[in-house]
Amino acid sequence: MSINVQPPSGMRDFLPQEVKKRRYILNIIKDAYEKYGYLPIETPALERLEVIYGKTGAETDKLIFEILKRGEKLEDAIKNSEQLSEYGLRFDLTVPLARFYANNIGNLPGLFKRYQIGPVWRAERAQKGRYREFYQCDIDVIGSDSPFNEVEIILATMDAFYALGFEDFVININDRRILFQILKSLDIYLRDEVLISIDKLDKIGKKEVLKQLIEIIGEDKANKIMIVFDSVAKAKGSIDRINILENAITNLSGSDEVYDSTPYDQLRLIIDTIDAVGEKKNIIFNPYMVRGMTYYTGPIFEITIQDVSFSLAGGGRYDELIGVYNKYDVPACGISIGFERIYYLMCERAMFPKDIEKNEVFMTVFTKELMTDCLKIAKDLRGEGFNVFVYPDFNDKIGRQITSALKNNFKIALFYGEDEKKKNCISVKNLDLNKQDTIAMDLLVDYIKTQLKV
Amino acid sequence: MSINVQPPSGMRDFLPQEVKKRRYILNIIKDAYEKYGYLPIETPALERLEVIYGKTGAETDKLIFEILKRGEKLEDAIKNSEQLSEYGLRFDLTVPLARFYANNIGNLPGLFKRYQIGPVWRAERAQKGRYREFYQCDIDVIGSDSPFNEVEIILATMDAFYALGFEDFVININDRRILFQILKSLDIYLRDEVLISIDKLDKIGKKEVLKQLIEIIGEDKANKIMIVFDSVAKAKGSIDRINILENAITNLSGSDEVYDSTPYDQLRLIIDTIDAVGEKKNIIFNPYMVRGMTYYTGPIFEITIQDVSFSLAGGGRYDELIGVYNKYDVPACGISIGFERIYYLMCERAMFPKDIEKNEVFMTVFTKELMTDCLKIAKDLRGEGFNVFVYPDFNDKIGRQITSALKNNFKIALFYGEDEKKKNCISVKNLDLNKQDTIAMDLLVDYIKTQLKV
Repeated sequence: MSINVQPPSGMRDFLPQEVKKRRYILNIIKDAYEKYGYLPIETPALERLEVIYGKTGAETDKLIFEILKRGEKLEDAIKNSEQLSEYGLRFDLTVPLARFYANNIGNLPGLFKRYQIGPVWRAERAQKGRYREFYQCDIDVIGSDSPFNEVEIILATMDAFYALGFEDFVININDRRILFQILKSLDIYLRDEVLISIDKLDKIGKKEVLKQLIEIIGEDKANKIMIVFDSVAKAKGSIDRINILENAITNLSGSDEVYDSTPYDQLRLIIDTIDAVGEKKNIIFNPYMVRGMTYYTGPIFEITIQDVSFSLAGGGRYDELIGVYNKYDVPACGISIGFERIYYLMCERAMFPKDIEKNEVFMTVFTKELMTDCLKIAKDLRGEGFNVFVYPDFNDKIGRQITSALKNNFKIALFYGEDEKKKNCISVKNLDLNKQDTIAMDLLVDYIKTQLKV
Repeated sequence: MSINVQPPSGMRDFLPQEVKKRRYILNIIKDAYEKYGYLPIETPALERLEVIYGKTGAETDKLIFEILKRGEKLEDAIKNSEQLSEYGLRFDLTVPLARFYANNIGNLPGLFKRYQIGPVWRAERAQKGRYREFYQCDIDVIGSDSPFNEVEIILATMDAFYALGFEDFVININDRRILFQILKSLDIYLRDEVLISIDKLDKIGKKEVLKQLIEIIGEDKANKIMIVFDSVAKAKGSIDRINILENAITNLSGSDEVYDSTPYDQLRLIIDTIDAVGEKKNIIFNPYMVRGMTYYTGPIFEITIQDVSFSLAGGGRYDELIGVYNKYDVPACGISIGFERIYYLMCERAMFPKDIEKNEVFMTVFTKELMTDCLKIAKDLRGEGFNVFVYPDFNDKIGRQITSALKNNFKIALFYGEDEKKKNCISVKNLDLNKQDTIAMDLLVDYIKTQLKV
């Protein structure tokens, strides 16, 4: 017998203690989203390939797990050298949302705030901290172009982060339209290459980026771009940075017909409102940020933590994605929390409540004859809200049963033998403290409550 | 643009109201399981095909969604006419559990009670009430052969059903070993065919089954089987039925070396204990029940409801499945609740709490200038535990905003204009009752609490 019993590469089994910690995080995120009026939806794990490939283009092509056709369809496909698959596993929750909105438009309000939490699958090379099956937690608003949507999306996410215990995070915000204005002002059309370079400004430094830009667009335009970004360096605070950048861009040659104040006004409004409503000023304007997904059309944001190399959440406005699936464009924006990275960080920083991995009451059993009594006691305790594990193997020695209680991570063990039955009492052991008491049966509930808190 | 925006065949999108009802059920089942000390685990959606095909054999072969190999692996597979896939989507939660146990045995207690709730995928022909992606809710105990495991598995499931509001369900119980004893006593080796016929006794009737059995095993043996089952007809109650059947089987020719009292004793113990601990006597011995999965080795059970053609849950003991993945056999048993059928029935019977589809507070907005105030009010309400939707499009007329509130299923709308601001009050409308009041700001929390209960 030599079946490989490990999960598929890049995927994971979770033990009970791990599931508890994961659920703790998921519940906090879910609560924060629900407090803001985002409503839950669910979509299938599988999508038609035409849906998956609808807009996302080359950057995700290679990441899709495709489902093999079956039966006659497969035979035909092989015979005729056609596609071997028609469905794929979803690689994010944004494309399914756009498809969902188009499919259910008759039953949905024009302005729709939804959240979705669930696994997505990407056939990436598995490596430390990068998985092929992982959870995302998304909120999105469809049907409104108001920048107050961005405000609430950011506030809701901040609330989730605070509730999880993070204080040291920063929200980076930019607007794709500002980047587009810079490029347009300089008659640059090779947008993607130039944007990829600009995105590296705070990673590989000015000198290296300038070198790259010169290669792509020549010295003159490269220098002009650097002057624009240089101007921001002197600024104090985000609003000042936006003002200076706006000014620098209006001064770019030939920029008059390109310049539009909307993105600057919206960024100022978003930042000012968050500062007015939120409790901490941790939102900063980052003019270099581009973000990968090609579908963003306006404000973009990313949540980062000092000394952590990956971002914990990211999103933005994508006013042209719904139109790919729908008859016409519908404005939309959203954010996606990278759940696995938060889980990783919280484990590393030990940010979970005490006893989160512990289970409650473990009932040992002395004889087959006492089993029904034990089950009745367990039933009463369950009625009081406790989780109770009854040990089923009445012939096993108590030592072995307690080993099982410890391995199953229980905090309290009960002992009910003939002696206890005669005296209508029960023995209770706090397994953490290795401390045992015998108490009257009618005091059991209160006693357990106290012990669970110790 | 002609992308098909429907979900894949046999799979579903769920609107917020549907998600709420589904979660309501899932939470009740989860709570019942946790009360019994079953601990949560999670496994990937994908499994290696060698794991999926390890034990389940022909009956599931055709149901597996397989994942197409990628890149070079796929090219090689096509070139060499090898298998085009190495992974498949899980079709149940029992096979993954067996694999999980073998993989994590070093970190698991020998006696392990776990639950798992999640989607599974089967490439069945889609039809009414049968889906290709659906949820299962499983509990299992690994590492114990005590029949008290069956007792607790059944009690936990009964608790879940009661908590959901079902009263009219019946637990059918049988033991595969009894069926095997009958067959062995008559030297019948074509087990599967005969069992499939017996399984139909309470569906297509005695006469038809006898006809089928005669074809398979001849008149003599067919008649002997019918006599055994006929004997049970006169019995009163489950225990009486078990006693009579046991007696009839000991009387079968050549049965002395085959007869073993264990399954009868265990069934009596299971039924007696459930009757002693549980509140209702709705467990019945059904000697015809076989159940499909080939891996069952002992007691089997199925939960049914009168006038409903499908079973709502089913399970049994499978002492030889873990051994397929592990170095040696480990006893195990479990039950699987068919969540989709319960969801279907509860929708049909309107068994959900009043207002389950409703959302809480919808905040309308009069002007851009008042937006920050509105966000602050929303923030305070969220701090009090309410879910608050703030309408982001400050230029929209209030009528349009209220339409959005109704379409989004909100129960309460708030109005905060210049007038309200001056007087430090706020207008509150109960959208269900179409009733509006203006109240002092510091009474808002209590007022909303009252309205949400109306």
